[in-house]
Amino acid sequence: MSIAIKVDLGPQSYDILVSPGILAGAADPIRQVTAADRGAILSVGPVFSRYGSALGKALDRAGIRWDPILIPDGESRKNERTLVRVLEKMASFGLKRDSCLFLLGGGVVGDLGGLAAALYMRGIDFVQCPTTLLAQVDASIGGKTAIDLAGVKNLVGAFHQPRAVLTDPRVLASLPERQFRSGLAEVLKYGVLGDAGLFRFLEKGLSRILRRDPRALQFIVAVSCGIKAGIVGRDVQERGERALLNYGHTLGHALEAYYRYRGLTHGEAIAYGMHFAAMLSNRLGLCTPEVVERQRVLLERMGLFRRVGSFSLEEVRHKLRLDKKARKDGTLFILTRKIGLVTIRADIPEALLLSVLTQFQTEMFKSR
Amino acid sequence: MSIAIKVDLGPQSYDILVSPGILAGAADPIRQVTAADRGAILSVGPVFSRYGSALGKALDRAGIRWDPILIPDGESRKNERTLVRVLEKMASFGLKRDSCLFLLGGGVVGDLGGLAAALYMRGIDFVQCPTTLLAQVDASIGGKTAIDLAGVKNLVGAFHQPRAVLTDPRVLASLPERQFRSGLAEVLKYGVLGDAGLFRFLEKGLSRILRRDPRALQFIVAVSCGIKAGIVGRDVQERGERALLNYGHTLGHALEAYYRYRGLTHGEAIAYGMHFAAMLSNRLGLCTPEVVERQRVLLERMGLFRRVGSFSLEEVRHKLRLDKKARKDGTLFILTRKIGLVTIRADIPEALLLSVLTQFQTEMFKSR
Repeated sequence: MSIAIKVDLGPQSYDILVSPGILAGAADPIRQVTAADRGAILSVGPVFSRYGSALGKALDRAGIRWDPILIPDGESRKNERTLVRVLEKMASFGLKRDSCLFLLGGGVVGDLGGLAAALYMRGIDFVQCPTTLLAQVDASIGGKTAIDLAGVKNLVGAFHQPRAVLTDPRVLASLPERQFRSGLAEVLKYGVLGDAGLFRFLEKGLSRILRRDPRALQFIVAVSCGIKAGIVGRDVQERGERALLNYGHTLGHALEAYYRYRGLTHGEAIAYGMHFAAMLSNRLGLCTPEVVERQRVLLERMGLFRRVGSFSLEEVRHKLRLDKKARKDGTLFILTRKIGLVTIRADIPEALLLSVLTQFQTEMFKSR
Repeated sequence: MSIAIKVDLGPQSYDILVSPGILAGAADPIRQVTAADRGAILSVGPVFSRYGSALGKALDRAGIRWDPILIPDGESRKNERTLVRVLEKMASFGLKRDSCLFLLGGGVVGDLGGLAAALYMRGIDFVQCPTTLLAQVDASIGGKTAIDLAGVKNLVGAFHQPRAVLTDPRVLASLPERQFRSGLAEVLKYGVLGDAGLFRFLEKGLSRILRRDPRALQFIVAVSCGIKAGIVGRDVQERGERALLNYGHTLGHALEAYYRYRGLTHGEAIAYGMHFAAMLSNRLGLCTPEVVERQRVLLERMGLFRRVGSFSLEEVRHKLRLDKKARKDGTLFILTRKIGLVTIRADIPEALLLSVLTQFQTEMFKSR
């Protein structure tokens, strides 16, 4: 069964196709979205050696002459040096305005590759082939592309929409356990911010999911994509509703940066971020303690509260101020109302923020 | 007298204000286009020391706290290293999504600074204050931002529209002669591609213009901006009509790159490019020899055919193939029909192209 989710962005609309085996069968969908006869597959070594030949053969069948561009993996390499090397490679392969870039990999390949496609000759076509759960439910949808700079995650980027997203749930079978569980953090996020039914499915079906049952995976990926696609379609430039997608990300990004993108995965960082958001919401009287607890239990069952050394309150507070969503009126937080509903606030009093941050630090980092 | 030219781009529309003394009086127009209370002035040393305090005081009056970011001048520095340094500076000053970047300078400041504004936090406001004739009539309009990479001019860039363009014809009085004349090449371009009246004004009033008569300058700047704004408004993403603005630029860019952005200014390079385009057009039967000659004479009177050592046919032909406007069907050329009318062609036979290029090389580079 193939599921198609349309991301409705007027002339820049595109489809997310969630289908087992779609990588090998990509020639037809690719031919429908690009007229390119030249291209490149951007990937990282281990992913390319596993899935590169399936995608490459599909490109051959689609009549697209291609070269591989392999980059080092890891958030720490999602930087300006890697970006420049990719752009230079694209030039050396003679890619033109009507060429197409195929992004085969996780969030680093998608974020950095999308930015390369956005910038090369002021924008060429690209197609996402996400190979991690995180990329399948988040990074590959919405046109946000970026690299990190000056220690700030995604400080530099652009909005550039893919021509299509080809999502193959089968590739998740080979994903390392920790990375797979990290992706579940984003799935849980969609449940809390907009779909109590998805949240209940995660609570009840977690063991099926952790066994990587293909139908369960296709379901949670497609539902997550549908929620994100709906929000992005209503707010491309992140002026309003789209900020909801940052549930758990305000503190999450600060923690990721604090641990230099090594101590915590993105999913683990936003798991902490979501728990912190719920604690903050409860202190503000926005949600009941039961909501905080129900979310905490599921995050715990997903194995997302990774043990790392504690952090400096001062440094994390500083990073929060530098958050790219921060405006004159303060750092933006997405707060929990109940399972399935969140809200945006920028006016958190400084003293309260520090108090909850201290409590969070004690409970989650020091008392265990 | 102040002239306002509206660039009509829907929600991204903005005004070009052409007015003597507008830099010092910039507080009001700036307040009308941005809500920023933080900003930076990006400039090069000599320009900043001459006009920085006028603009800086205007920002103070507008209630915008600002820092200066000075970059080295010259096309050869319009590269990824300078861009990254600017982005790092912006981060170190704590600029946020609702901050504003003010670009005070010529094409390098405008192109690179516009790209920095496009990329920082995926896009912040910027205001252009162009200080060269070239930037006033060309670089500051249209939202094209870029840096050079891998030896290819403007290989990497984005479309990002300014909130306003503040054009002060008075600053042209201090422009070095060669740079001023280079800017005239773009003005002449507008005459050939879309306004025979402007072309005649240049023919008849050239001595007034070369004396930098303020009224004559305001007139040619405003008329040029009006032509470009009209074309850009009809074709933001450069899919069709906008390509006309590249009259003279196909060979021009190749020559600039060949001489490593040192031997020829941009204006001198496109002067050669326009003459080549006219020769090619004539050989294709698209225009009369009189058109070629009339344009050549005016370019000569403007002192634009700079003597430089000849070039390698093979290398220039290679650079033409790499031109970012090149597509599967061949390199795009904008060809001369008559003064005031040009046309786009991508199907120039290879043999003819080489033949005219050889003739052009002999006449312009070897027989003088």
